[in-house]
Amino acid sequence: MTGLSDAMLAPLDTPAVVIDARKVEANLKRAQAYADRYGLKLRPHIKTHKMPHLAIRQLELGAVGITCQKLGEAEVMADAGISDIFLPYNIVGEPKLARLAALRRRVKMSVTADNAVVVAGYASAFNDPSAPLPVLVECDTGMGRCGVTTPDAARELALRIAAAPGLRFAGLMTFPATHRTSETQAFLQTAIAELTAAGLHPAIVSSGGTPDLYSAGEDAGIVNEYRPGTYVFSDRFQVTKGLGSYEDCALSVLATVVSRPTDTRAVIDAGSKALTSDLLGLEGYGYLPDYPEARIVSLSEEHGVIDLSASARRPEIGERVHVIPNHVCPVVNLFDSVHFVQADGAIQDVPVAARGRVG
Amino acid sequence: MTGLSDAMLAPLDTPAVVIDARKVEANLKRAQAYADRYGLKLRPHIKTHKMPHLAIRQLELGAVGITCQKLGEAEVMADAGISDIFLPYNIVGEPKLARLAALRRRVKMSVTADNAVVVAGYASAFNDPSAPLPVLVECDTGMGRCGVTTPDAARELALRIAAAPGLRFAGLMTFPATHRTSETQAFLQTAIAELTAAGLHPAIVSSGGTPDLYSAGEDAGIVNEYRPGTYVFSDRFQVTKGLGSYEDCALSVLATVVSRPTDTRAVIDAGSKALTSDLLGLEGYGYLPDYPEARIVSLSEEHGVIDLSASARRPEIGERVHVIPNHVCPVVNLFDSVHFVQADGAIQDVPVAARGRVG
Repeated sequence: MTGLSDAMLAPLDTPAVVIDARKVEANLKRAQAYADRYGLKLRPHIKTHKMPHLAIRQLELGAVGITCQKLGEAEVMADAGISDIFLPYNIVGEPKLARLAALRRRVKMSVTADNAVVVAGYASAFNDPSAPLPVLVECDTGMGRCGVTTPDAARELALRIAAAPGLRFAGLMTFPATHRTSETQAFLQTAIAELTAAGLHPAIVSSGGTPDLYSAGEDAGIVNEYRPGTYVFSDRFQVTKGLGSYEDCALSVLATVVSRPTDTRAVIDAGSKALTSDLLGLEGYGYLPDYPEARIVSLSEEHGVIDLSASARRPEIGERVHVIPNHVCPVVNLFDSVHFVQADGAIQDVPVAARGRVG
Repeated sequence: MTGLSDAMLAPLDTPAVVIDARKVEANLKRAQAYADRYGLKLRPHIKTHKMPHLAIRQLELGAVGITCQKLGEAEVMADAGISDIFLPYNIVGEPKLARLAALRRRVKMSVTADNAVVVAGYASAFNDPSAPLPVLVECDTGMGRCGVTTPDAARELALRIAAAPGLRFAGLMTFPATHRTSETQAFLQTAIAELTAAGLHPAIVSSGGTPDLYSAGEDAGIVNEYRPGTYVFSDRFQVTKGLGSYEDCALSVLATVVSRPTDTRAVIDAGSKALTSDLLGLEGYGYLPDYPEARIVSLSEEHGVIDLSASARRPEIGERVHVIPNHVCPVVNLFDSVHFVQADGAIQDVPVAARGRVG
């Protein structure tokens, strides 16, 4: 079902993260082709994979740069030679500002702010008018996380950024779960108009999120950069959101059935330390492509308990099963290395280079 | 509130796992004193801390050995000189059986089985009658995870173990959320009676779980070994279960407030990649001892969103806050190293040596 045979995977012990390299390539190419069709710039979010070779491939295919969620990720990517990194996060405190400044001396960096304290921090750490730090204003267009909450506040913060000699107002950034709602569009359009009237036209308007990736082109008049992350592997959440099918999921956790205590129960050696407890609103802790009616009903740290009541076929003790996780990003973050299966069946062990970084 | 001052922790950047070494010592001593009072053997579960120096301290205080949840943990602990390890898990497949055999040549190992397939695997890998592998039968006394489901099945499996020349039936093991229910007691008493009648008196009857630790002594006539894990640090779940107070929680995640988008919302730089999504039936993703009325209402991977509506005092941007996690075990597993604060304020960075192991 995953297209990877048991014989291919025989060298791996479980639990293991298995990635079909061909599906990754297809997922990356499909997204880039879509973005190219609409003139939308892709700046993939590497928090999903945390692996330099995939970031490099995303750039080779046409991405304008990458997105990282924390300095530790950006440092690893800069070490790997990546030269254009967007960090859509409020960077707070002197140690982190010093790390940002060190990165900025090596590569092209841009960041966000959603408040004046953070802007003041950037202004204190960056004061070279000949090479100002690009700062985007984060807007809360419905997510309820970070971000200024009105277009007026976006304009005020942009003016503050523009007033700092070592900073440059570079645009707007949002992360909506639903970027195409009229609320989001109205916020961004009003903010763009107000900023333009104030002489601060936002060069970049950046949105993100894989679920909306394949409708982002229709907004290309407003949003001109897009930061998809999960599309590289996809996962159960994305499939339930309509992003392709389980056939497009490139990553699975390979697990072994270690117990069949009852006729309807199986226990696998992948628990919350392999699959995470992320539900994202779904029922159960993953999808078994070889046993689609099976439900992972609970996780302990090293056990996954599967209810087979609805499944006519049932796995035996010792059988290995694939689990497509609910949410692939924190799963990759649990593993020191993952296994890429190439078209010829060769398996490459790749370290998750940017995992486990502090801030 | 945590007893660790901001000045002490100033050298640390966030997010960081901070551990009060004095509280750890108090938690370990309290449990050992309780066990000693009842003649209950403690075999602490190291999946919580994954750090050899804590396992060694648990043994110094009187533990009879340790418990690991997977071979990778046991290998790290054996490397650190620990010589008596219980692995209450069905070890399945030749690579893992070979690793178990290699461990067995170095240290005293015992394992569990809950089915005949697993016993056959052990019997094929261990065939030296002069040094048989001790195997306990895992019993499901209410948890609904692994384990034989009846006392009769326990006896049958024990007979199968006893019949294998290279194996030795060593006792019964259970992991009940509620080990003192009459259901659990009835299961164990019946199984013990049946086994004794069959000439296979179970030398060890092992139970576990920190929530029931301080009532386990009253069962010492039935259960003679106990495997608490979380007691070393405690966490929000344990406190809600009645295990001491938040003052006994030795571990917190130190985070920085990076945004205050509205009067009632704060955002910290600890999300699901620092706190995990584990709820364990609780509301919210952790407890803030300095802001007890605050609620962590949602997590993204690198953001924790806090609702301050009920909190009169509210933190500013840049302020650092402690979060006592819902479930401490998977939190430790996310970090490559953690920070122990000693009584004199010295901070020691300690690698989480046994994290990230495969199986």
